[in-house]
This record gives sequence, structure tokens and C-alpha cells, in this order.
Amino acid sequence: MPHIKKVVTIGGGTGTFTLLSGLKKYPVDLTAVISMADDGGSTGRLRDEFGVLPPGDLRQGLVALSDDGSMMRKLFNHRYEKGDLAGHSFGNIFISTLEQVTGSLDKALDVASNILNIRGRVMPVTLTKVKLITELKNGKMIEGEDMLGNYQLVSRFGIKRIYLKPKAKPNPKALQAIKEADVIVIGPGDLYTTMIPNLLVVGSAIAKSKAKKIFVANLMNKHGHTDDFSINDYIQTLERVMGKSNVFNTVIYNTKMPNKALLKKYSDEGDPVVVSKPPKKTSYKLAGFPLLASGVAKTSKADKALHSLIRHDSDKLAKAILHS
Amino acid sequence: MPHIKKVVTIGGGTGTFTLLSGLKKYPVDLTAVISMADDGGSTGRLRDEFGVLPPGDLRQGLVALSDDGSMMRKLFNHRYEKGDLAGHSFGNIFISTLEQVTGSLDKALDVASNILNIRGRVMPVTLTKVKLITELKNGKMIEGEDMLGNYQLVSRFGIKRIYLKPKAKPNPKALQAIKEADVIVIGPGDLYTTMIPNLLVVGSAIAKSKAKKIFVANLMNKHGHTDDFSINDYIQTLERVMGKSNVFNTVIYNTKMPNKALLKKYSDEGDPVVVSKPPKKTSYKLAGFPLLASGVAKTSKADKALHSLIRHDSDKLAKAILHS
Repeated sequence: MPHIKKVVTIGGGTGTFTLLSGLKKYPVDLTAVISMADDGGSTGRLRDEFGVLPPGDLRQGLVALSDDGSMMRKLFNHRYEKGDLAGHSFGNIFISTLEQVTGSLDKALDVASNILNIRGRVMPVTLTKVKLITELKNGKMIEGEDMLGNYQLVSRFGIKRIYLKPKAKPNPKALQAIKEADVIVIGPGDLYTTMIPNLLVVGSAIAKSKAKKIFVANLMNKHGHTDDFSINDYIQTLERVMGKSNVFNTVIYNTKMPNKALLKKYSDEGDPVVVSKPPKKTSYKLAGFPLLASGVAKTSKADKALHSLIRHDSDKLAKAILHS
Repeated sequence: MPHIKKVVTIGGGTGTFTLLSGLKKYPVDLTAVISMADDGGSTGRLRDEFGVLPPGDLRQGLVALSDDGSMMRKLFNHRYEKGDLAGHSFGNIFISTLEQVTGSLDKALDVASNILNIRGRVMPVTLTKVKLITELKNGKMIEGEDMLGNYQLVSRFGIKRIYLKPKAKPNPKALQAIKEADVIVIGPGDLYTTMIPNLLVVGSAIAKSKAKKIFVANLMNKHGHTDDFSINDYIQTLERVMGKSNVFNTVIYNTKMPNKALLKKYSDEGDPVVVSKPPKKTSYKLAGFPLLASGVAKTSKADKALHSLIRHDSDKLAKAILHS
């Protein structure tokens, strides 16, 4: 019997949605480890009102791994536009209510995974209720992931320290998955609000793992956060958080630039991520592919809107990961 | 192969919850036809905000027919106490969201029935979006079921006319079930806000059906609505709405009075329903059983609270129906 590759993705948000949507179509054993720092929008309201763990990124992971045409998927993605429920997505309400009723997010995810008939597993990186705290070099403290995401002067002042409060206990199931993984994929995703909140919890476990570690570079930098970051800047930032150098074996990046009109439209959001020039000698293999998606996004309607303009092709990304 | 009795219940609300909870434990083919006039509380808010059909009574029917200990049942009954969702039950949100996503309450109920793994079927009496209008003999118009339920002077002034606006088209599936039924059970339940809103839609179909028609008398009259009503008063009121006399074959009533302390506690709510004195010659068989439940109610936590004080024993009620 051939060995089924155990692939663990570390993420949350739209980048992970794209990644999982692609990977689920291939015969791999998939585990999605999801960031638990979100405190904005519908998720933030549910956290505030019910004291639950953040459901939003878990919902996106579950939906990504569900059948594309299924009714439950449509239901989970439904976002209310009117009344008391305006802004909430049904999936968030479902997960948070199940967490309250069962008394455990773990059990809630079992039920939701079952109802959505997902391929693979979705698990929170931690079950600790955390807040992301960012201290800038000018002394400013930014409390919360949502606040950080919307703060435009991060790159100007620089980050002195970024941490979770209270300290997060890693989810034992996530640690187990990381330990047993053949491949661990980090990215694409937001550096400060998705990648680092994960690595603050399981970064050292990933560094220790014998798995092949792949970093998927974002297509675009984020204005005010990662302006002019090269791939190497990302790697260095992540490895600093993980407390170890030369962690990554492979970096997958996009070689097909968006057209000028699209880049102009996107210019307020950020510039393309490029390989450092002149190219440095790196400890990782640089694997470039034309990964840019064409046409209109078919991602979940949920959460952010602009991610649909310039995004990875989920199938090309999955192939790049499995063949690089 | 023995014929499985086809039992159709006509109701909604707590009385129907008790009835279905009992009947589902017996080998009968169960169909619950549910009133669609509710416009109060969580249901009213969802109707107002999303223009959906009323989910609350359907939810109670679904929950009654689900497995007693199941997680999905607990989830459906979960009522929010805080935040934007306060007052809503999860089941109501689930049904209404599915109705929006599928574009059809029928499909929504299919999905919900499946997830709850119910015994039997739950179906709306109509798919027309109706409001219950009550004209009192003093000229006062009462718009809505919730308004009527809370209006305390109905019995003082008397009802001149009660109707649904717009005229409701019977649900074809409900008509079919009524036509094929071996037994049709009406009650227990609120006369004006549950029984009549059903009979205004399918009353003539019931009258025409060859099924054995059973009326289950309430334990208590409702103060301000049915003060001092005898069983015969109920029957006459219902048959007037159905446009036919001598419809009912059997009336099941309770012979065990609540103790005096309980009656006193309940005295603001109403007095016990009794057989007319002196007993009149009736066209229906009067079947008395000790149907009073003892102990604390195990009904759904949802909706009203007082129903738990004096209520039918669901198992005794089911036995009375199946053996009378």
C-alpha cells in the first residue's frame, strides 16, 4: 500500500482557504491547523458576547474542505445582511453555539466536520483564549488582531515585540499532527495577523519536526505592514519567531505578475512580493511557478472582499506543493 | 404485514410537543401538521427581518420527534441569553437561514429533519405568509397571533370573526397526509392561537377525511380567552370553523385534577377544562383518562415557561390516543 502523504497546513483566513481548496482534491491526508487570534467582525462579537473561542477562521477551513456544491457549505457561508444578525455568518453562529452547548470547541468541530462531510481535519492551534498584543518600537501598544490588521503604521515604526496574552497552550492534537507530518505548509496568509499568531504557539514544534517545511510566499505585500518585503524578509521574520534558523526547505513563489491595470487598482493595498535582488544564497530551495489565478474569485463570500482581486490559483498551488 | 397506523397531528406549540414526544415512541406513521400563524418573540423577529415563514412551532415539532438525548436536539433548543442573539433559539435561526439559502421552507425542513434524525414528518399547514386577524364583537381588531395571545379581554367581548390574511393556501403535502390518515388528532393546544389558525386552512379537509378524528381537550382553560369553557364549547367552536357538525369521533379528556396548591398557583392562568354538567348527549365518544403529568416538566426550554406547571403526561396521552 502506498504511503499517503500527511500534509499539515498552518494558517487561517483566505490564503488558507485557497490552499485547502486545492489540496483537498489530491489524495493526501490533510490537517489544517488554524490561528486563534481573530477578534474582529462577527467573530469578535461572538467572543465578546459568549466568551467563546474565535470561530471565523475555523469556519473558513471547514468550508474549504467541504464539498464544493453542498447545501451545508452554502449554509455555513451565509452572511446576514439585515436585522440583529447583520454581519454574522451562519457558520460562525453554528460553531459558537455548538461550543456553548457541548462545552468544548473540540466536540463542536467534530459535529460541524461531520455535518459538512469534510475531507481531512480542521483544528485550532490552541484552545487558550488569547489576544494578540503588538508593541511597536515607538512604544505604542496595539491590542488585538483586528486592531493590528487595520493599523497602517506598523512598517513605519517597526515591531518591537509581538505576543499572545495569556501565553497559549498548544493544542495537543495540533502538536501530534505536526510531529507526524510529512509536509508542513506555512502561508499564504497575513504575516502578522495569521502566520505569527500560529508560530507563537507551535513555531518551535514545527522547527523540531522532521517534516519537509514549505513556505508559500504571498503574491502581494501588505501596505503599512510588509512594504517592500522580499521573500527572505518573510523567512527571517518567521524564523526569528520560531527561534531557529534554516527551518524551511522550500519556498514556493509566484512568477507571473498581475497585469499593470490590476497592480494599479491594488496599489493602495500593497506591492508584489519578489525574490531578493540580487538573489542571495539561501538555505532553502526557491521554487517559482506561475500561480496567479485568472478570472473572478470563487472563494467564500465571507470576511474580506479585496482578496479576490489578486490571488493564488488553488489547483496550481496544490500541484506546486505536491510536486516541488 | 400489519398495517402501520397513519397518525396526523394538527397543532403547534407546547401541547403538540408533548403529544409528539409521546406518540413517537409507538410504531405509528407520524405526520405533524404545524400552525403557521406565530409572529411573536424570536419567530416574529425573524419574520420581520428576513421575510421568512415562522420557524418556532416547526422547531418544536422537529425537536419533539428527535432522539431525546441527541446533541443536535440540544443545539436546536439552545436559547441565547446575551448579545445580539438574545431571545433567539438556535433552531429558529437554523430553519430560517436554511429557508433563505435554499429558497424553500420545504427543503429547509428536509435538511433539518435529516440532521435531527427525526421519527416521522413535520410540515407547515400552509406556505402562505399569513397574519391572524381577530375582530371582536365590540369592533376591536387584533392584528397578529402574539397580540391575540396576550389580549386578556377576548372572552369578555367575544370574537366576531377570526381569519388569516391573506387567505392561506393549504400545503398540498398536509392535505395529502390528512386525506390518507387513519387517525387525526387535534389538541391539546391553544384554541384561538393554535387550533383555529390550523383549521382555517385545513378544517374542511379534516372534516371530509375518513380518518378517526380525536380531540384532546386541554387540561386548563385560558384566562381571558376560554374562561369556563366546557369540552362541548371547544368542540362547537372548532366545528363552526370547520363548517361542519359532528366531525369528532372521540374526545380524550383528563380525569385527574391537579392538587389545590397547584390550581391556586395557576389560578391567574385559568381553570380546569371539564365535561359539561349536566352531561349532554354528544355525537362523540367521551374518553376520560388520568392524563396529568407529575413532577417537573421535561419539555423544551424554549418559548413559554408556565406550561410546565400543569401538563399532560406524554406517554399516557399517547396510550390514550392509540387505545381509545
